[in-house]
Amino acid sequence: MSNAVTMTSEITVRPVQSMSGDAMVVAAARVSTSGEEAAALVNLPAEESTGLIRYLMRHRHGTPFEHSALTFFVHAPIFVFREWHRHRIGHSYNEESARYRPLKPVFWVPRRDRAMIPIDGWKPGRPKFLTVDQAIRVDWKNSGQGQHGTTTELTAEADEWYAREVDRDRRAYQLAYDLYQESLADGYALEVARCKLPVGIYSSCWVTVNLRSLMAFLSLRTHEPAANHVSYPQAEIEEAARACEQAFKAGWPVTHAAFCEFGREAP
Amino acid sequence: MSNAVTMTSEITVRPVQSMSGDAMVVAAARVSTSGEEAAALVNLPAEESTGLIRYLMRHRHGTPFEHSALTFFVHAPIFVFREWHRHRIGHSYNEESARYRPLKPVFWVPRRDRAMIPIDGWKPGRPKFLTVDQAIRVDWKNSGQGQHGTTTELTAEADEWYAREVDRDRRAYQLAYDLYQESLADGYALEVARCKLPVGIYSSCWVTVNLRSLMAFLSLRTHEPAANHVSYPQAEIEEAARACEQAFKAGWPVTHAAFCEFGREAP
Amino acid sequence: MSNAVTMTSEITVRPVQSMSGDAMVVAAARVSTSGEEAAALVNLPAEESTGLIRYLMRHRHGTPFEHSALTFFVHAPIFVFREWHRHRIGHSYNEESARYRPLKPVFWVPRRDRAMIPIDGWKPGRPKFLTVDQAIRVDWKNSGQGQHGTTTELTAEADEWYAREVDRDRRAYQLAYDLYQESLADGYALEVARCKLPVGIYSSCWVTVNLRSLMAFLSLRTHEPAANHVSYPQAEIEEAARACEQAFKAGWPVTHAAFCEFGREAP
Amino acid sequence: MSNAVTMTSEITVRPVQSMSGDAMVVAAARVSTSGEEAAALVNLPAEESTGLIRYLMRHRHGTPFEHSALTFFVHAPIFVFREWHRHRIGHSYNEESARYRPLKPVFWVPRRDRAMIPIDGWKPGRPKFLTVDQAIRVDWKNSGQGQHGTTTELTAEADEWYAREVDRDRRAYQLAYDLYQESLADGYALEVARCKLPVGIYSSCWVTVNLRSLMAFLSLRTHEPAANHVSYPQAEIEEAARACEQAFKAGWPVTHAAFCEFGREAP
Repeated sequence: MSNAVTMTSEITVRPVQSMSGDAMVVAAARVSTSGEEAAALVNLPAEESTGLIRYLMRHRHGTPFEHSALTFFVHAPIFVFREWHRHRIGHSYNEESARYRPLKPVFWVPRRDRAMIPIDGWKPGRPKFLTVDQAIRVDWKNSGQGQHGTTTELTAEADEWYAREVDRDRRAYQLAYDLYQESLADGYALEVARCKLPVGIYSSCWVTVNLRSLMAFLSLRTHEPAANHVSYPQAEIEEAARACEQAFKAGWPVTHAAFCEFGREAP
Repeated sequence: MSNAVTMTSEITVRPVQSMSGDAMVVAAARVSTSGEEAAALVNLPAEESTGLIRYLMRHRHGTPFEHSALTFFVHAPIFVFREWHRHRIGHSYNEESARYRPLKPVFWVPRRDRAMIPIDGWKPGRPKFLTVDQAIRVDWKNSGQGQHGTTTELTAEADEWYAREVDRDRRAYQLAYDLYQESLADGYALEVARCKLPVGIYSSCWVTVNLRSLMAFLSLRTHEPAANHVSYPQAEIEEAARACEQAFKAGWPVTHAAFCEFGREAP
Repeated sequence: MSNAVTMTSEITVRPVQSMSGDAMVVAAARVSTSGEEAAALVNLPAEESTGLIRYLMRHRHGTPFEHSALTFFVHAPIFVFREWHRHRIGHSYNEESARYRPLKPVFWVPRRDRAMIPIDGWKPGRPKFLTVDQAIRVDWKNSGQGQHGTTTELTAEADEWYAREVDRDRRAYQLAYDLYQESLADGYALEVARCKLPVGIYSSCWVTVNLRSLMAFLSLRTHEPAANHVSYPQAEIEEAARACEQAFKAGWPVTHAAFCEFGREAP
Repeated sequence: MSNAVTMTSEITVRPVQSMSGDAMVVAAARVSTSGEEAAALVNLPAEESTGLIRYLMRHRHGTPFEHSALTFFVHAPIFVFREWHRHRIGHSYNEESARYRPLKPVFWVPRRDRAMIPIDGWKPGRPKFLTVDQAIRVDWKNSGQGQHGTTTELTAEADEWYAREVDRDRRAYQLAYDLYQESLADGYALEVARCKLPVGIYSSCWVTVNLRSLMAFLSLRTHEPAANHVSYPQAEIEEAARACEQAFKAGWPVTHAAFCEFGREAP
């Protein structure tokens, strides 16, 4: 069948372009104390920028980081963009339109080893999950007889548990997409037919962000136990955020090191 | 069955609070030429504000409109919020979280009389639709025999055509919601289970916006043939925008009249 | 002479209007876990909001604070507005125009007891000042003979030191304003004549800000040794910021207490 | 005397870095109808982008222009930055600090041929000026005898008229700067001493702006009689804006042509 859905767990973030680097951060900051001479600092060797950049980060002088920008081309499920688009300041977006083109049958499923089984006592704002394997092991332990299960048994039980979820996803996706195609074939507009498409369907989006806003995004969308303010983002947007962070680290190594050193807060 | 989906076409926009009115617009603008005396103008009778407000709108002096704000509580399908959240400047949002609570089985279906059948030659950015009734009439006409059909026949055919779409929506929604419940019952996290929920599911969201940004929103999300720049928004966000516009008109009658008079552009 | 300059140290911040209170913060936040029921929370008694508001502040969930807004009418020297206008996010301004009206001869002088004598080893970003009285006392002490001076002697010396600065200000202001008037009388445009007016001249400005952005403003423009990030603002913008903070405290007592408790950072 | 003021009319705008070009605008826009294939369009030949870019501009689809950015290093009088800093959206700034370093004695004077003599019936928001030469000619004409004056006589009178203004500027600047230096020598802090410095003093500032916000800036800060909304900016910020526009035109020729063709409005 031509409309058979494809299921994947990949989130793709392609760095497409960027502007400036650590030297520009320094040049921007130095204008406050050096006036006209600051213009020459855009070619400063990176090693000379460490002290000032660490100072800016520690004392939260954020504006010098706004003269740097990055653009990404992102392929991810709609539920990831739903979260991403809530970042308004210093973020620009252009996304694929489900009003203007039929979406392709590509859908998201969780990875086998994703932590996704809530622990008892779970709370909003601070979710705690286990993988299916971990959850089974805990369950066995709690039930008193579990510790005798073999690894093979555990894997088999986990496989089956995971397969049930993948199967549910596939059934929901396939029916939704078939009915979507039927609506279109029956003459209905894309924007009406699409109401039945799940938020797990993939979309494409350009994202341009300045470095200060990127740090704000990273501070909320990555989980680091040592951060000043620990966030609990959904794993899929964290995966995208980590890919953005790689481009940040590659282009602004001094700034990135300072960002990590001082608790991963946007200055 | 307790999880039977509810289908509705209602978009609810409740105005909850607002700040200022036409007199504040005038007081804000007058500070440029009156300095300290402008503070007293916040109690100006509305009829004295017309000339200046029309001037501001015509010449696109936008900042005086930013000292006014409105808050709405909105109940709408996710695909409406997907569009709304793209408005970043002067907009604030807080939305129901599908990571922290199970969503309720309330879903959107198009109204019977919604224009939703694309006309031939339809183009992205400028969609043109007919209602099912209109589309059948055109079809009859084009086929040469159609003009002999009765109104009763037309209604019957349209009913059936519409019923097919409603049925497809219901099937997609019901299966997705049943499988979502199964995923939860099988121990999966809300944020993972929800991937199969369609964008037609309802969500709740607070929206606060200043008056200048509201005008930008209205200029893009309402269709008015006489506007300076004619927009082609999706009908559902237009319905929400029209409700916001009622609150705008009630609280800032002079500003609203000027907005309409000068082509519905954000100043 | 009609153009004799007036000199003052007053910074006036008049709260003019505001929208919402602590209950709105709670209602906004609760929509994430309560969906439609959150709409009813706008009338929540303040005492029930403490726990959640402290949680939001501690964990830096900032958006629920954006549905609150305040408007101020501010009378201050231009050098204060120069700093204020650098706050872009969530801030709206309308200011008196020196292109459209002649500015009045009202100018700023430092208060007698303002800390304004830099301590040795002073550094950009972290200024440390003494009052003239304190500086004289230190000077006496360092010179070895100072500690024998009487309070009367100290006051006399400080008076004279301060008077010299006031006199310099007056001479600069008076000549600039006289020449400004001459330029206007000689036919020159306001926008050209004004180039000679000092940044100590007063202007009037409307400022509207949402509560989240106000907290960002306060965190940078007030000095609190116990804050998470200690700022060193100029005293005059701090005076204005403190006046804004009074209106914040009066209208959102629970939020304000939490802001102080958790280190005076914008959530 | 070492502190003799320097007077100049130059406004310097140095383009320092930029990101993207017309092809990126197209690539950003095309994602709405092409999805994943849009990523490849960043290398599109410019000539293929004309149709779509004109369409975006005419119909005011602004977001695709946000993935482009430019950074300028600007040297201009404070009264220019006072206006520039009012542009908040998509603009980033870092400026020389008069709290952290003594400002240099460089001040602005109007050019000899600047239109700066208001015409009778002048109105706020719509200033109309003549040069000194033009104003004398009009004056002569109105007085009935003027038309007999020679060009030499006119130039002499204009020279004298202009010289009076330059002299007033010099006197105000020189006294202010001398007293500023005296305040510093007398032990006062930079931030207190500077209150007497005129707004005509020069400062240095980094400005980074995305292309959409740059167009908004240009639409308000350049005067073009054929624009959809005619603005009346002060000549000095217009001079800076024109320099920014050159960098825009050089880097995005197709976008710039469309901006001019469709009335110089920000899309």
